[in-house]
Amino acid sequence: MRIAVDAMGGDQGAHEVVRGVIDAARRSSAHFFLVGDATLLEAELSKARPRPSNVEVIAASQIIEMCDEPVAAFKKKPDSSVVVAARMVKEKKADALVTIGNTGAAMAVSLLTWGRIKGIDRPAIATPLPSLAGTVILLDAGATPDCDPNNLYEFAVMGSVYAECLFGVKRPRIGIVSNGEEESKGNQLVKRTHALFKQVINSSSPFQFVGNVEGKDIFRGGADVVVCDGFVGNVVLKTGEGVAEMVLKLIKEELGRHTWMKPFLIPIMPALRNLRRRIDYAERGGAPLLGVNGICIIGHGRSNAYAVTNACKAAERAVQQSVTETIRRRICEMPTPPPE
Amino acid sequence: MRIAVDAMGGDQGAHEVVRGVIDAARRSSAHFFLVGDATLLEAELSKARPRPSNVEVIAASQIIEMCDEPVAAFKKKPDSSVVVAARMVKEKKADALVTIGNTGAAMAVSLLTWGRIKGIDRPAIATPLPSLAGTVILLDAGATPDCDPNNLYEFAVMGSVYAECLFGVKRPRIGIVSNGEEESKGNQLVKRTHALFKQVINSSSPFQFVGNVEGKDIFRGGADVVVCDGFVGNVVLKTGEGVAEMVLKLIKEELGRHTWMKPFLIPIMPALRNLRRRIDYAERGGAPLLGVNGICIIGHGRSNAYAVTNACKAAERAVQQSVTETIRRRICEMPTPPPE
Repeated sequence: MRIAVDAMGGDQGAHEVVRGVIDAARRSSAHFFLVGDATLLEAELSKARPRPSNVEVIAASQIIEMCDEPVAAFKKKPDSSVVVAARMVKEKKADALVTIGNTGAAMAVSLLTWGRIKGIDRPAIATPLPSLAGTVILLDAGATPDCDPNNLYEFAVMGSVYAECLFGVKRPRIGIVSNGEEESKGNQLVKRTHALFKQVINSSSPFQFVGNVEGKDIFRGGADVVVCDGFVGNVVLKTGEGVAEMVLKLIKEELGRHTWMKPFLIPIMPALRNLRRRIDYAERGGAPLLGVNGICIIGHGRSNAYAVTNACKAAERAVQQSVTETIRRRICEMPTPPPE
Repeated sequence: MRIAVDAMGGDQGAHEVVRGVIDAARRSSAHFFLVGDATLLEAELSKARPRPSNVEVIAASQIIEMCDEPVAAFKKKPDSSVVVAARMVKEKKADALVTIGNTGAAMAVSLLTWGRIKGIDRPAIATPLPSLAGTVILLDAGATPDCDPNNLYEFAVMGSVYAECLFGVKRPRIGIVSNGEEESKGNQLVKRTHALFKQVINSSSPFQFVGNVEGKDIFRGGADVVVCDGFVGNVVLKTGEGVAEMVLKLIKEELGRHTWMKPFLIPIMPALRNLRRRIDYAERGGAPLLGVNGICIIGHGRSNAYAVTNACKAAERAVQQSVTETIRRRICEMPTPPPE
């Protein structure tokens, strides 16, 4: 198995990506390509003792920056690290792409280089989130801001495959993000989607429909997969991040208020660190762009080496479990939604 | 000033509402009406020592339950506590309504009893949320799930008035909840709303437009008021609640993991309690339904006595500051948005 890693994206620089890939390579029999500025990447790589034999540098002379407009950047920068890495997958020189760069560019590049899976109208980013029960997969987290019920139906199919393949969930429970649990709740999109799901998903389907899920219940573990349009998904994701960050900052503020408290804090620091780890995006290792003809794992721009390692692991597992093939098969097997 | 309180809503029973109102009455010169089951309320009230002279029981024989369908309940239960309380405002026997019952019913009852403010097409619930800078007002939090740009413009006008009147913010900074800060980001609604705001809001407007606000930035304090449709607003609110709850549960879990840790926790408990207080909905004291011809403060169904007291204070302040009048005046003064 061969993983092509776009080494030039990310807020923390190539150094962090290289460290993450080296760590992934040491624990794996897969072959890793570090794609980007060859001189820089060789220099970073040569710092590793011993240098892992299953990591190889592939030169790419351009970089798509965080501020670049995705489609324009794809056209103007054919030798950028993410485009070169995607092309390797297209040409069957690699089995998956991992990137922590510009998310919009990763989507545009994957979509334009590989095309969509037949039967999938729009792609979706499936983000694994922490929940009290472990992990819940949210999609779409931002690929398709405006959706119709059919799009959400395809997201349900793709999300169920990902929950099965990556997290070993049998007959995943699918929910629709809404402003209330009752069937009567929701905006127009949610109401129409609810009606469609009830009509098409039944006891012989490879996944279950558990109805609407309120924002606060997403994290309680009542569903394995929650679907919504990419606008709402992105807002859920970022709101969650913002609140978790605020609570952790306020804890720090409250506990740091009195110096006499300090000695009492030392013994509980490991517990607080463990807490941060449990709600940390890095633990969950990147989100796949589903619906395209290839495996693309997108990591958070803030990813550190540890998050990069986890994104590489997710890519390996997605290849092993033939996620793309399974989606292609399942979307064919599922009944076609009737016209509204 | 007279405040009519629907005493029969809420998950914690009338007992908690009565306690909250008594506490509000003791700190205020306003007159409070407790509307609901007269025998029950008199019994609860008579427990107070001394019994405050500015709290009076008004009989209402019916209750709108949490599960009741709002509009049907309004028609079928004309003697329910919330309907009687709203009628008192309509008949100028009270100046504001406070309820912690069925939110949908509170909206339907206010709207159908009082009507809308002229110039306001759809009402909005304005929820004050904690932020690192203090408080940010989110609207709509659930009154109008499907919106057009004009609705969001009206929300901006109403939210700016509330921020000014209740929180003393001068020329409030208004943001649009979006999936990215850039003007190019957003779903169709957000893009059209952004264009409208840029056209209509300028340096002589009584509020400022600060552009799009991502989910994680809502809580960072970069805007005083953020607007979105009622579906997205409800999802933001509930997601925030869910994540805060999860983080606090995980803290408890992590800190409770080892018994030897207990003695170290005792001195920091006040800090953790203070944290909970700072992110607690109760502190912020209920959300007004804006756009209707009267003041209606809606508290969380889980509200305890303390939250009820704060909701009463918000109602008093909204009356003192003539929030409804100010909205009526400002919506007339603002330029009418041009047709798209």
